[in-house]
Amino acid sequence: MKTAVKLLAVTVTIMATSVPAMSDEGMWLYNDPPRQLLKDRYGFEPTDAWLEHLQKSSVRFNSGGSGSFVSADGLIISNHHVGADALQKFSDEKHNYLRDGFYAKTRAGEKRCLDLELNVLMSIEDVTSRVNAAVKPEMKAEEAFAARRAVMAEIEKESLEKTGLRSDVVTLYQGGKYHLYRFKKYTDVRLVFAPEQQIAFFGGDPDNFEYPRYDLDICLFRAYENDRPAQIEHYLKWSTEGVHDGDLVFVSGHPGNTSRQLTMTELEYLRDRQFPYTLQRLYDLEVTLMAYSARSEENGRRARDYLFGVQNSRKAREGMYAGLLDPAIMAKKQADEQQLRAAAAQSPQAKEVLPAWDRIAAAQKIIAQNALRYRLLETGHGFNSTLFDIAHTIARAVEEKPKPNGERLREFRDSNLESLEFQLFSPEPLYDDFEQLKLADSLTWLVEQLSDSDPLVQKILAGKSPRDRASELVRGTKLKDVELRKKLYAGTPADVDAAHDPMIELAKLIDPEAREIRKIVEAQDEIKQQAHAKITQTRLALEKTTPYPDATFTLRLAFGAVKGYEENGRSIPFQTTFAGLYERAAEHHYQPPFDLPQRWLNRKSRLDLNTPVNFVSTADIIGGNSGSPTVNRQGEFVGIIFDGNIQSLVLDFVYTEVQARALSVNSQAIIEALRKVYSAGPLANELLGKKSAK
Amino acid sequence: MKTAVKLLAVTVTIMATSVPAMSDEGMWLYNDPPRQLLKDRYGFEPTDAWLEHLQKSSVRFNSGGSGSFVSADGLIISNHHVGADALQKFSDEKHNYLRDGFYAKTRAGEKRCLDLELNVLMSIEDVTSRVNAAVKPEMKAEEAFAARRAVMAEIEKESLEKTGLRSDVVTLYQGGKYHLYRFKKYTDVRLVFAPEQQIAFFGGDPDNFEYPRYDLDICLFRAYENDRPAQIEHYLKWSTEGVHDGDLVFVSGHPGNTSRQLTMTELEYLRDRQFPYTLQRLYDLEVTLMAYSARSEENGRRARDYLFGVQNSRKAREGMYAGLLDPAIMAKKQADEQQLRAAAAQSPQAKEVLPAWDRIAAAQKIIAQNALRYRLLETGHGFNSTLFDIAHTIARAVEEKPKPNGERLREFRDSNLESLEFQLFSPEPLYDDFEQLKLADSLTWLVEQLSDSDPLVQKILAGKSPRDRASELVRGTKLKDVELRKKLYAGTPADVDAAHDPMIELAKLIDPEAREIRKIVEAQDEIKQQAHAKITQTRLALEKTTPYPDATFTLRLAFGAVKGYEENGRSIPFQTTFAGLYERAAEHHYQPPFDLPQRWLNRKSRLDLNTPVNFVSTADIIGGNSGSPTVNRQGEFVGIIFDGNIQSLVLDFVYTEVQARALSVNSQAIIEALRKVYSAGPLANELLGKKSAK
Repeated sequence: MKTAVKLLAVTVTIMATSVPAMSDEGMWLYNDPPRQLLKDRYGFEPTDAWLEHLQKSSVRFNSGGSGSFVSADGLIISNHHVGADALQKFSDEKHNYLRDGFYAKTRAGEKRCLDLELNVLMSIEDVTSRVNAAVKPEMKAEEAFAARRAVMAEIEKESLEKTGLRSDVVTLYQGGKYHLYRFKKYTDVRLVFAPEQQIAFFGGDPDNFEYPRYDLDICLFRAYENDRPAQIEHYLKWSTEGVHDGDLVFVSGHPGNTSRQLTMTELEYLRDRQFPYTLQRLYDLEVTLMAYSARSEENGRRARDYLFGVQNSRKAREGMYAGLLDPAIMAKKQADEQQLRAAAAQSPQAKEVLPAWDRIAAAQKIIAQNALRYRLLETGHGFNSTLFDIAHTIARAVEEKPKPNGERLREFRDSNLESLEFQLFSPEPLYDDFEQLKLADSLTWLVEQLSDSDPLVQKILAGKSPRDRASELVRGTKLKDVELRKKLYAGTPADVDAAHDPMIELAKLIDPEAREIRKIVEAQDEIKQQAHAKITQTRLALEKTTPYPDATFTLRLAFGAVKGYEENGRSIPFQTTFAGLYERAAEHHYQPPFDLPQRWLNRKSRLDLNTPVNFVSTADIIGGNSGSPTVNRQGEFVGIIFDGNIQSLVLDFVYTEVQARALSVNSQAIIEALRKVYSAGPLANELLGKKSAK
Repeated sequence: MKTAVKLLAVTVTIMATSVPAMSDEGMWLYNDPPRQLLKDRYGFEPTDAWLEHLQKSSVRFNSGGSGSFVSADGLIISNHHVGADALQKFSDEKHNYLRDGFYAKTRAGEKRCLDLELNVLMSIEDVTSRVNAAVKPEMKAEEAFAARRAVMAEIEKESLEKTGLRSDVVTLYQGGKYHLYRFKKYTDVRLVFAPEQQIAFFGGDPDNFEYPRYDLDICLFRAYENDRPAQIEHYLKWSTEGVHDGDLVFVSGHPGNTSRQLTMTELEYLRDRQFPYTLQRLYDLEVTLMAYSARSEENGRRARDYLFGVQNSRKAREGMYAGLLDPAIMAKKQADEQQLRAAAAQSPQAKEVLPAWDRIAAAQKIIAQNALRYRLLETGHGFNSTLFDIAHTIARAVEEKPKPNGERLREFRDSNLESLEFQLFSPEPLYDDFEQLKLADSLTWLVEQLSDSDPLVQKILAGKSPRDRASELVRGTKLKDVELRKKLYAGTPADVDAAHDPMIELAKLIDPEAREIRKIVEAQDEIKQQAHAKITQTRLALEKTTPYPDATFTLRLAFGAVKGYEENGRSIPFQTTFAGLYERAAEHHYQPPFDLPQRWLNRKSRLDLNTPVNFVSTADIIGGNSGSPTVNRQGEFVGIIFDGNIQSLVLDFVYTEVQARALSVNSQAIIEALRKVYSAGPLANELLGKKSAK
């Protein structure tokens, strides 16, 4: 469950009331935790120190996911499927770490990740009034957007210069609030341990987003500073107790994106336009990658992480889309919206909010008209190639960097350049055949969507078929050379032109329209943000409803009870055990994706088969939460989030705790497996805070 | 390579000249064979008896494919992937004949197919003038269509009554000619032998439409009459010689569909609208079926043949689509068309053809406007369920049958009812979960394409999500009961209404619009046919070009040379051997789809590894030709077509013999495998015309 999250569809029973007064709903801000709710519902009152400790133990994986510190020497735990990106990138024709796993018995053997950046949230500051003050009521949307972008870049740069910390102004409540988040950054991150993908993702696509499950979906890294293990003040104590039925647990992580506060026009747009488009793109990609992967073992290795991500995303989106197609869910959203509008209409102070919905609808209409070209040209759906992304970034960087900080495209603001360069100069291996495959497929998609007679498409293809053009571009570009990237990035637009790199020339060809259409979409987003700000104020004033913002891949605190559920008249227990793992494999005759790694077959007798493997809770999570620590009242690590069940997929739009559940790997299973299956006693000892010979 | 054929895309070198005066191009009519061309090019002059023998030895599989008689006792050979439909249908939870193969050691053990109809072409009669005479120049398109439909039904009924043979008027040259084809029909067809799917389709999707290949893609059936093996006059003598480099060979089979004579507007429609739509549908279906299949072995068995068909079709269409996106191919088609139009403009007699292109363009435009709803409602893309098809057929049958023969929807004409009923009353097993999966997926597709706000869509879904609606319909219908189908089919519309079957009610709900839109499309097709008839006449008069019609799943004769080719500087030999099969499996470490059935591993040492397995020729084939016999000058069976290489996929639009090749299984490999791997000596003896103890 990375940012591009996972899911399948089902009918869920949605709570009938619109105000979840007493439920486990919420992805709460650390500077606005649900103290009253926790007290009323669970009799629990977190101290400031408790909150600070959990916050600073939590880690964001910029590749898309969550994690946490679990030792004083910088050990970080996340999911295998979050670490997959790093595992893929340092594998090669002879080493398939993603499939086969990895264990560094010594610190010297820990393997440095090529381009993994981790962030730890150190502080939050509300800068809403400063951001809004920069935007004058008389400004047109485009000016307002530019003014807002400028003040955000200014705040971020000031903060970076003052604190040395990565500083991001994050937009919350769809524009209702702006907070400055400061992060400590780690860019020297090394792999310590990963199991085989087959045990991390036992059951494969069929069991993805399902429960009961039996997955050891973990991966251990270590943060380094100055070439030595980072010394960490805030890390989670490891619980050897696990969890019990009904326990209160917390999840601290980075839910990627939810759509709960969208208006009906925005939801209808998702249902009628965005989801169908995205699913079609994913189906096409999945088939293309499957066919490529089947051709040889090495192809399969090259495409492995990407294919996993596409399948995961497809299953997630199918589930969300099924939610949007469920009349019961849409009726509930409609009723909520009408209720708020009716309440506002009767309030002299709130009445002025009413045009906000129409403004959003009007903006959404313009976005819809531009969405296809925006996706194809600006978000890169027409040019699915890492080499193209590099080319486009370089072509823009040399134009953007000379501009004043506040006037640049947002990703080129001063405070972001270090992270951008870290990715741009990644030594990640790139394979010509795989780049060609993805580029030919996406150029074909581009022609399909815009038609062969589109003048820009004709220039892009230059009289060739998508396949021939992709081959020519990939073979012609020199951008696999990281040194060349650095040289061009440091140069002037004229230097870049003089390189005559065909991929950069393509990026420059599409860039004027890509920028133009981005400007249109950003202006409409500004209109929507202003309108949403008003709606948020009204909602907070009129409803005693849950005051947490939609997910934005920023740190949130969720809570819930460890709890099974009923399904088709069956009682689904709150946890599973190793015994169940072996039973499920046997049921499926050990055939993929229900096969077990050889080591797990050989060492079965060593394991305590009653050890709990996975458990479920009602905590409110979504894609991006993958790898989040699950902690108990004492703030101890009892598990790690790795998935949600099928019924949780509608959480994108509406919370429900009837059947929707968050899935965690149990902390006890991790220790048991490390010791008994992987002979990784020293690592287990480090997690338990014991001294070890290592 | 069934009718829904197979393919991937490549750059092909297209011949520069537009008139293939001396090439192996052509899917020739048996009543108009290329005598002069064969004489000039190969010095071969087929006698009438030679042609008649090959024609009457050829068999059409109505499930989509070709085959031939190969013994006096009614033995028929086709491809495994053509027989797959039959193998799937009589498999069950305990028997997976499609995967595991089958061999009846005794005639009593031969297994009757549930709904397989075979046709043998007995005669051809040109009825063009009678068909055209019924259509008066002053008729509007809709009237003209009705008149043409009526006279065709009349001719067919007369013929059926006179001869007792299945009688079909087939449309050739897109409407340029109408021929009456009479077929002997076999509906008691029994399975004799099938190998494991893994050797029939060794290399799976990666090797599909590729060469070199090593596949034993065969299946043997026997035709029965009156519960005894049919006694066959015309069957092919089996060659034990195989083929040699450069040999002239013939292919006699049923190419499904080509688009070589389409105008540019029609080709552009295929490129810009139809192929993108169809590919998206296939990608979605493939992913849906893969995900379902992975959930359990039994799911995999249920979906096996359908998934194979979808993947095969996807790969084929990707290749064809890549051809349409190749500017070189389109430029050639454009030049051909311009040349003909220019020639016509200069000829006083031909000049009157010129408006024909505009008429086709205008008709194509109207078709394009209606195509989406036509596909969703009339061709069933919105209701992908066998139970729905049954419901729709019954709902229409009771309305159509009371009408005069010539006024019915064409599939309900008297001469076709027997075949229609044979399919409708098939005892094919239907699985609720699989029906629900397909129906939910296609209802989702329907909403996606037409939007949630479409009034008909709202009625179809009846306030439920696609998933819930599909479940309700499949669980509610009683149409799995074949006796009920028979009863309803024999009844009146009122009887059918009284059954209150929810699936029939759905069919009736959409039927008025489905009929209406079909009427629109048929009228435009009529306009196109009239225009194509004129273009064909002009082409035949002005160009000395190849006078064979586009493929229409009717019997055709192709010819060519056994011949390797050059690819990326490598020489690809004309044939492969068993030794190559084992090498390829070893190269891929015997991992799927390059694994071998256990029997093939065990019995390797018995085999003569130098036996040729597959060979290629320049014969002009396309999907639907699967299972066609390949014969030598003596009319002897030397092999069986089972695929075309990647470079052959553009044959849909234009013939080329530079690299495009037809793939056959060698007759020698079949005998060697039957004897040495399958211990099926008696069957091998029967093929060789030897007496056997059986």
